[in-house]
Amino acid sequence: MPRTVSWSRYFPILKWGRTYSGTAALNDLIAAVIVTIMLIPQSLAYAMLAGLPPEAGLYASIVPLLLYSVLGTSRSLAVGPVAVISLMTAATLSEVTQTLEVGYATAALSLAGVSGAILLAMGLLRLGFIANFLSHPVISGFITASGLLIAAGQFKHVLGIEADGHTVPEIFGSLVAHVAETNPITFAIGAVGVAFLFWVRTGLRPALVRIGLRPQVADFWAKAGPVLAIVLSTLIVWQFDLTQSGVQIVGAVPQSLPPFTLPDLSRDLVAALFGPAVLISIIGFVESISVAQTLATKKRQRIDPDQELIGLGAANIGASLSGGFPVTGGFSRSVVNFDAGADTPAAGAFTAVGLTAAALFLTPLIFCLPKATLAATIIVAVLSLVDVRTLRQSWTYSKRDFGAVLVTVLLTLVLGVELGVTAGVLLSLLLFLYDTSRPHVAEVGLVEGTEHFRNILRHEVITDPSVLSLRIDQSLYFANARFLENYIYDRIIDDQRLKHVILMCSAVNEIDLSALETLELVNIRLKELGIDLSLSEVKGPVMDRLQRGPFLEHLTGRVYLSQFEAFRGVVVAVASGR
Amino acid sequence: MPRTVSWSRYFPILKWGRTYSGTAALNDLIAAVIVTIMLIPQSLAYAMLAGLPPEAGLYASIVPLLLYSVLGTSRSLAVGPVAVISLMTAATLSEVTQTLEVGYATAALSLAGVSGAILLAMGLLRLGFIANFLSHPVISGFITASGLLIAAGQFKHVLGIEADGHTVPEIFGSLVAHVAETNPITFAIGAVGVAFLFWVRTGLRPALVRIGLRPQVADFWAKAGPVLAIVLSTLIVWQFDLTQSGVQIVGAVPQSLPPFTLPDLSRDLVAALFGPAVLISIIGFVESISVAQTLATKKRQRIDPDQELIGLGAANIGASLSGGFPVTGGFSRSVVNFDAGADTPAAGAFTAVGLTAAALFLTPLIFCLPKATLAATIIVAVLSLVDVRTLRQSWTYSKRDFGAVLVTVLLTLVLGVELGVTAGVLLSLLLFLYDTSRPHVAEVGLVEGTEHFRNILRHEVITDPSVLSLRIDQSLYFANARFLENYIYDRIIDDQRLKHVILMCSAVNEIDLSALETLELVNIRLKELGIDLSLSEVKGPVMDRLQRGPFLEHLTGRVYLSQFEAFRGVVVAVASGR
Repeated sequence: MPRTVSWSRYFPILKWGRTYSGTAALNDLIAAVIVTIMLIPQSLAYAMLAGLPPEAGLYASIVPLLLYSVLGTSRSLAVGPVAVISLMTAATLSEVTQTLEVGYATAALSLAGVSGAILLAMGLLRLGFIANFLSHPVISGFITASGLLIAAGQFKHVLGIEADGHTVPEIFGSLVAHVAETNPITFAIGAVGVAFLFWVRTGLRPALVRIGLRPQVADFWAKAGPVLAIVLSTLIVWQFDLTQSGVQIVGAVPQSLPPFTLPDLSRDLVAALFGPAVLISIIGFVESISVAQTLATKKRQRIDPDQELIGLGAANIGASLSGGFPVTGGFSRSVVNFDAGADTPAAGAFTAVGLTAAALFLTPLIFCLPKATLAATIIVAVLSLVDVRTLRQSWTYSKRDFGAVLVTVLLTLVLGVELGVTAGVLLSLLLFLYDTSRPHVAEVGLVEGTEHFRNILRHEVITDPSVLSLRIDQSLYFANARFLENYIYDRIIDDQRLKHVILMCSAVNEIDLSALETLELVNIRLKELGIDLSLSEVKGPVMDRLQRGPFLEHLTGRVYLSQFEAFRGVVVAVASGR
Repeated sequence: MPRTVSWSRYFPILKWGRTYSGTAALNDLIAAVIVTIMLIPQSLAYAMLAGLPPEAGLYASIVPLLLYSVLGTSRSLAVGPVAVISLMTAATLSEVTQTLEVGYATAALSLAGVSGAILLAMGLLRLGFIANFLSHPVISGFITASGLLIAAGQFKHVLGIEADGHTVPEIFGSLVAHVAETNPITFAIGAVGVAFLFWVRTGLRPALVRIGLRPQVADFWAKAGPVLAIVLSTLIVWQFDLTQSGVQIVGAVPQSLPPFTLPDLSRDLVAALFGPAVLISIIGFVESISVAQTLATKKRQRIDPDQELIGLGAANIGASLSGGFPVTGGFSRSVVNFDAGADTPAAGAFTAVGLTAAALFLTPLIFCLPKATLAATIIVAVLSLVDVRTLRQSWTYSKRDFGAVLVTVLLTLVLGVELGVTAGVLLSLLLFLYDTSRPHVAEVGLVEGTEHFRNILRHEVITDPSVLSLRIDQSLYFANARFLENYIYDRIIDDQRLKHVILMCSAVNEIDLSALETLELVNIRLKELGIDLSLSEVKGPVMDRLQRGPFLEHLTGRVYLSQFEAFRGVVVAVASGR
């Protein structure tokens, strides 16, 4: 392969950049304008959610977007601060800044840096598959619980009171303690904001279409709703000088390009941030890759998960060097970008330019922006994260999945995001392992007039008292080998008539060394009792392996191609043996 | 069920005791004599290995044996100190006594107590299945490494020098530092002892048979070899007063019944012992249950793993109350017990009586027993633990299993027993999970003239350019759902002719909620691209589940009973559609 191929593998821009056309540029530009309008309030709000000054949200959307557009493989993904990652950032930083002597904003840079390094390392080591070990229901439960936690955490801004906490009991305890201090004007702004934004989200578009606007135009206005809320509430606060009445505002935001910052990478801080950074990296990666994958498939495009890790890693390192905090590919902004017609990652670069302009010129205009409006924006945005459907679906489909979701939701709400997601992931893995350790084993018999064997408990079948036919519906490995062994022993101890055991292996995709040793042992034990052991329907790759060892030589019975042949074989042996 | 059944479930003695006969008593008595002779040197040696005075080994073989004979379900198992558990005990105690203010022997009582409580709790909670998650190769690797560590640790006694350490680098570093202090007479006793015992183990029995002894008699003498070594070396040391020349001896051992002791169960000590006790309990249980299972099946007897946990738990609690240390069912002693004709657990009770007699009357006779002889007994005994066969077998059979064994062996040797076995168990579980996350997926086609579908890479088959038939050789769950999704997308992105995807599910034993969601997503994506999705050969239990949700309604294709029907179905659709 020529050298350029490997360059373009790590720099996908070399691939799409080569054929970049005027049409594509125009599409990208239009998409960028729409996304920029959407991102300004989001960036400010998520910065507040992460506990950082509003400009950090803008900065975190500029350099990361640029870097991702050079290194990412998705053509539609928009990278920047997102709700769940901002919540995890806040939880981590408030803990770390309590125990270590480090500034909050500095620690945010470090967290982005460590997280970026982890993502980059995972990408270079091609460890993208790790994300697969997070089950959908657990992720969904975690995101639902995070949404609820985020919304709960914003109530203080809507009420205009002081409150803190990172779990539901803490937050509500704190809210209840301070609720008497509620600022009525702030509460009015917040409540109207929530109601308005909720209506924008659900009722505005149909209403605009009804009054005769074209769907695309209606869509645009629905998306611009949060901007409208910000403009209106800012004007009201400014006009009536409501800061005098105690309404909390954003205040002075510097007019500046993203600053060049150096994260504190002292050993203690990195050690304290490492665990949370791993979780933030993996959760962020899962969120990002899901969106990227979904959008790419719609256009028959490819996503390379390992290169995505590199892209997101670079984006986070970029955030740490430019006054930001941990970022990832966001769901809503990417969908908007895609729907608005973005053709290439250049749309991201244009969006970055738009946000730079905002950081340079618009910041003085938001001096009077009330925090309650930002909180309303967040509350309405995160309510879409709450996914009751998965909870209901898992209840009908599988109680085990339901249990994993419920535990994740409850632990996240009560113990916080880190423990919640860790417990959920471990629980789902343990449940899977437990399940595979107790495989379904069916005693089978011949369906009359056919060559099919079916479960004797479910069907009317022909059996022979001297033959035990077992179908194992699972690969055999160390955790279930002993289960099978006990199953066979249990069955033969009481039944002196048995002379033949046949294991039907049609669903056995693997036999590991532990299981092989167990089969060898079973073979010997059965031999001592005058019973022979046969196998049937062994798959090619499994058979290849078995042939490498002495097991097949020692086998007292035979390996039959089909269960029918096996049954006929041993029953004939019985007939002629008598 | 009548009440007596449940009593006899927790007290198996009520079952066998009711029909106990004179013949059985005689058989048990003979077995007990042989096992007692074998256990005296072993008990002394394993006490030394655990770092405890010799009498502790005798005590640990008395009360535990009695309790197990009442509560255990195996009729042949002999419970007492064993090599690997003694090694783990020494490693734990030397660490704990360094950090906490507690005597070594007291801590040994506590460790036995905590370990007994854990076993008992596991038994009552019916958690016996946990032992299944330790793969045979990992256990074998761990026991091999432990054998090597134990042998290395005994060199100091053979050389008559001071040395310590719990890992190979530590032990050898310490040995090298002190080798110059070697006591030549001790070394002579130790080296001759090792050579003699090795010959007893391998050459004595054939030699005796050759000079005309009956095999049973030859067997008896071969088993009495260690006793002979002890008697001879003790006599030599006494006769020539070799303690004057610096030969280390056992010294004064109290003549006494097992004392009544109370373990120290202070919070700090229990917390420090808990982790190691879990490992000791599980490893001990695995060793014990393997032996019990093997011996029981030979006589068509049943072992109840959960009741075994209760029996072993009681044995360990008994050890902690009678001056002992952690115990479990030993391999060699149980096999000897079985071969000597033990019929019931009463053999164990008789052995306990024999050992009590030894503790009361024989201890003065071993005053001059050189430690080098005990070390030689240990070295020769543990060399049989070294299992090169599994290492070789795993190399041929599966590189993955080989990797797990090698890591376990190396980490145990270099980092010690606790880290070694923990890392091995985790690694084998992670490898299994990794494996199931990348299932074997085969593109299949029709074998001409049959209804069978085979891998297109391995067989000459009929395919249709508009149909993609994939056979998935694994259950679908969260960790492999995305793999399948990517596999399908990768395949369809480049091939515009595809109109039908059929998933052949003959080896899919389960589809969890994550996989179901992925299939729903795949169905939607394919629909957008004008491709329909069908399933074939879905198993009964899987189908039952799928019917609970809306997936089958949304499915663009159909669910076919067989892959043949599916292929015929869609190809006809292609023909009529054009």
